[in-house]
Parts: sequence; C-alpha cells; structure tokens
Amino acid sequence: MNKQILLKSRPIGKPVADNFEIVAFPAELAKDGELLVKAKYVSVDPYMRGRMSDAKSYVPPFEVGKAIEGSVIAEVIESHHPNFKVGDAVLASLKWQELQTVPAVNVTKLAKNVAPLSYYLGVLGMPGLAAYLGLLDIGKPETGETVVISGAAGAVGMVVGQIARIKGCKVVGIAGTDEKTEFLVDKLRFDEAINYRTTKNMNEAIATACTKGVDIYFDNVGGEISDAVIANINKGARIIVCGQISLYNNTEIPTGPRPQAMILKKRALMQGFIVSDYVSRFPEGIKRLTQWLGEGKLSYQETIIKGFEKLPEAFTGLFEGKNTGKMLVEIE
Amino acid sequence: MNKQILLKSRPIGKPVADNFEIVAFPAELAKDGELLVKAKYVSVDPYMRGRMSDAKSYVPPFEVGKAIEGSVIAEVIESHHPNFKVGDAVLASLKWQELQTVPAVNVTKLAKNVAPLSYYLGVLGMPGLAAYLGLLDIGKPETGETVVISGAAGAVGMVVGQIARIKGCKVVGIAGTDEKTEFLVDKLRFDEAINYRTTKNMNEAIATACTKGVDIYFDNVGGEISDAVIANINKGARIIVCGQISLYNNTEIPTGPRPQAMILKKRALMQGFIVSDYVSRFPEGIKRLTQWLGEGKLSYQETIIKGFEKLPEAFTGLFEGKNTGKMLVEIE
Repeated sequence: MNKQILLKSRPIGKPVADNFEIVAFPAELAKDGELLVKAKYVSVDPYMRGRMSDAKSYVPPFEVGKAIEGSVIAEVIESHHPNFKVGDAVLASLKWQELQTVPAVNVTKLAKNVAPLSYYLGVLGMPGLAAYLGLLDIGKPETGETVVISGAAGAVGMVVGQIARIKGCKVVGIAGTDEKTEFLVDKLRFDEAINYRTTKNMNEAIATACTKGVDIYFDNVGGEISDAVIANINKGARIIVCGQISLYNNTEIPTGPRPQAMILKKRALMQGFIVSDYVSRFPEGIKRLTQWLGEGKLSYQETIIKGFEKLPEAFTGLFEGKNTGKMLVEIE
Repeated sequence: MNKQILLKSRPIGKPVADNFEIVAFPAELAKDGELLVKAKYVSVDPYMRGRMSDAKSYVPPFEVGKAIEGSVIAEVIESHHPNFKVGDAVLASLKWQELQTVPAVNVTKLAKNVAPLSYYLGVLGMPGLAAYLGLLDIGKPETGETVVISGAAGAVGMVVGQIARIKGCKVVGIAGTDEKTEFLVDKLRFDEAINYRTTKNMNEAIATACTKGVDIYFDNVGGEISDAVIANINKGARIIVCGQISLYNNTEIPTGPRPQAMILKKRALMQGFIVSDYVSRFPEGIKRLTQWLGEGKLSYQETIIKGFEKLPEAFTGLFEGKNTGKMLVEIE
C-alpha cells in the first residue's frame, strides 16, 4: 500500500516523532502531461523546520493534516509526457509519499552517469549550490584569508570549507562531535576544526585557531557560536547568514550580544542568503561543483538512513547533529 | 592666556564635565612649514566618545592628561608656508586649544565664498559625506523605496533624509523630541517623523509610518530603536550601520534580540560604514552636496554653542540629544 507522511501537529520547540504521522494513501493515476514517480532519495533539510510553524516566511508553511513536501529524487514508473521514459531519474519538490503523480514540467531529469543520484540532493543540489554561491558571491574569498564555518560538517558547511580551500584560504570549521572535527581535518583537509560542545571558551578557541582573525564567516548555525566568531572578525569581514539551525526551534525571539557595534567598528558586511534567489546561477554552480568532484578537489559525505518510515527520525536528527555531511533517506 | 581642554579621566558610562579639564597652555612658535592658527569652530562628534575609552578601535584612544583632538576650523594667524596667508580659513584635525601650531601639509584650505565656514564641519564635512556616501553606496536607494533614519535630526541623519527625498524615496525619521520631529517634517520635508521617547510601541509606529515596509535603514543610534526598525524590513533591505550612539556609553556589551534570523529571512544586508574609509570619494561628495545646497534642495541646521570653555558641555550634550542638526562650538 502507498504511504504518505503528513504533519500531524506543529512542533513547539524541537520537532519530535509525534508531530508526524504515516498514513496509507491511495495510488494516483497519472494524466496526460504527468508522470507517476516512485521516491528513491528524500532530502531532510533544516529550513523545513520553518515551514512546520505557522509563521509567514520565505516559503509558505506546511498545513497540518497534509503531506510534508521537500526535495526528492524519484524514478519514473509511468510517463505521459514525450520527454520522459520509464526508468528516468528526476528531481522535484514532492510530497513525502512513496508513489505520486507530478506534472512533467515540474521535474528536472537527472543524468545518471555523472555522479551518484543522491548527490543531486547535496553537493550537486541546493546545499552545494548554497555553499558555492553564498561563499563566492557574498564572501568573495581572497587567497590567504581565513574562513570560519559553523555547522561545518553539515551538507552546506562541508562544501563551503572545501571551496574556500580551493580558493587558497585558511579554513576553520566548527562542529559538535570529535568524530566530525576529525572528519573535517582528516578527510576534508580543513586547517582546523573546533568541537563547540567540548570547548569551554569558544571566543578564545577561535582566536587561537585564527591567528590572523576572521575574514569570512559562513554561518549555518547562529546563536552563541556566532557571537564568538563575530568577536574575532577583521576589518572588512563578510558574514554570510545562510542558516540559523541553533535557533529554529526557539519559541521566543532569542537574545544575545548586539552585533552592530562590531559590524560598525570593523566595517563588516552581514548578509542573508537563500539559495533559491539565485536560480539563474545554478547551471554555472553545478558545472563547477561537478568539475571539482571529478578532479578530486571536492570530497563528499552523506548520512543515508534507509526506509520511508524513518523520515521523521532523520529530520528530527538534524537538530541533534546526527548527520555528518548531507542527511537523506533512501527508499527501497 | 592660551587655553587647552584635556581628558582628565576616562568616562565610565556617560561622559560628564568632570572628565575634562581646562588648563592654561603656553603659546607655541610656528616653525618653517608650519602655521599658527586660532580655532574658530570646533566640532563635537559622537564617535569621539570611543576615543575616550581605552579600548582599541578604528581610531587610537585619547590619552589621559593630554588634549582632546577633533575636527576644527581655524584661522591662520601666522604663516610659515608659501601656500597660506594670514586670514586663511583651514580645516584640520587639531587639539581643543585656542591657539596652536600645525604643519601646513596637515590642513585643508577652505573657500570662504561657497558656504558659511562652519558648514565644513557638517553638511560639507564628515557628517554630510557620511550621509551621502553611506546612503548612496550601501543603501543604493531606488525611487519609491522607504528609508528610515534613526538619529534623524542629527548632523548625519538630517542630510541622509534629504538626499533620500532627492532620490525619490519615502522618508521616515526617528528623533527624541517633538521639536525635532516637527523640524524634520516641517523644515526638512520628511514624510513622517516618530518621537521615540513618547511612542510606546515603536514596532507598531514604524509599521504604521512605513505602509510598504522598510527598504533602507540608516542607523545612527542602535539598540531598541534598531530592533523595532529591523522587525519591519522588506526583502532585500539594506541596513547602514553608521553610528550606535545609544550604546557608546554602555559599560558592558549590550544584549538584544538577535537580528540574524530576520536578516536571513529577508536576505537583508547590514554593513558597517565609517566615512574615513572613503577619502577618495570626498571631492565628488562635497561637489554634489554644495550643488544641492545651492539649488535649495538641501536645508541645513546647526546648534552652535559659543565659548571655548563650553566644549565639554557641548560634547556631553550630544548624548542627551541636545542638538538639532550639527552641534559645534564657536570660539570668539
């Protein structure tokens, strides 16, 4: 029987399994111009937490009692469109549902021989493009500069750090387990990595790691980690605000030291970045990222959880730092 | 007898008269290449508060027991340099001292027939240039956008609002007395002005004044006023952090709602701005500001306090909002 995962209730604070419900869902019939597709890899992304609240944001909220939606790589099971055939792999914004119909114009056909298909949810998808465009367009890294990344072992952060290295920067990553910091230094060749959970004084740790100060801060996390990084910025620093995962579950507006005095003193730039604003640049980004992967300049890591019914667990795990690299769910 | 004002002690919190001392100071003899000058207009500026603390900032701190220094318009009394003659008006960074010597290479000769000389400390000086360059270079105002200015009746703010009007923007000023808000609307033709001292809910007041949201926020003040403005920014908003006068007297790092979530959601840009970084653009700015003054598109207002010994009082008055427009001291 076809299955669907719906939003049972809006999370208050951290999302829990009980906010989701797996329900049986009738099969759909594809009409002319549509495809019947079977989900193969389903993405779980921190930004989706925002859609689970009722608040107006840059994407509309999910509705209670309706299916969660997100990025999915699916296989075409039945095609009613001349450009697609059975067995094609496609990427689309789809429901958390095993089988579903989708208008062919809403999907992107994926090349099967370039990289593992799942990469199109990560390094060759939104996270990789966010890293590429956010770092290069806002950060404008120069050789010899120091780049600090929070959430460095996540889907976006791990790519940011490697691109910064390609650009000749010193790269310092911040993550939440020793396994992750070792991964950053040993596998991704970051210059330094700091475990914020075991470090007592983050401000000092960043100052020690960044002997020449911080020129670029790529922020996926927000909160106190950002306070410590911002305390160490150089004149003319660029701060890319790409995510604030540490704050997404807050039920009140979080407070902290005001950053404006430091931004003024250092003539720094802080800019919010949402990758979907840069659609016209995606082909360029995918081309470069694919090239770097092929040349071995870019390593990639995924945390793949198997089984459709594990989707809520995979999603809630994001807020516990359970993933190294991109977190996704594979459907057998 | 020649007089000097020195920093007697570093202010803790708000500066008070007792932090300054007026002392008799021997006359100096001008050497070859130097000028003997007599101070005529002395500028008091909020940024000078930073130099009274011991903390490293973008300008070195004043030393206790030594003269305060700042922008001064002076008259040449004795010239030992071929390019200057007695009676010339010059602008320079000088000591708070009636008579002093200065190397001629460190001063700028002022044209006497373009505008009142005191204007070179305000609308045709650093404050006017900060308004011009900060608004145009970072704010990039477009016709029909809404610009909000804190410290709007100050030396910088009053010029920002008028340039924003010239650029076809809706202009909303925030100031601290009814006299100032009336001045902004009646004399400077701002569209709206809000007295933050008598307004209970600033967030609502800004939302009411800015029916289309805030596209540009020119911030001279910081703190809770900024919180309220930032809560109302539009997608793609630009925030120019030019001053944080409400925070300069804090003895601890102030806390408040973290702005990053809003900056992310709205893809906003927040950038620190210090006018002295833009020296190469000063001639362009002075030319445009002079032109607008001549065309009557730019009004200008000063609060002039008379008497050298009033300098400490004029300076401390900045933090009590005692000035409408540029605050300066005239020496008879």
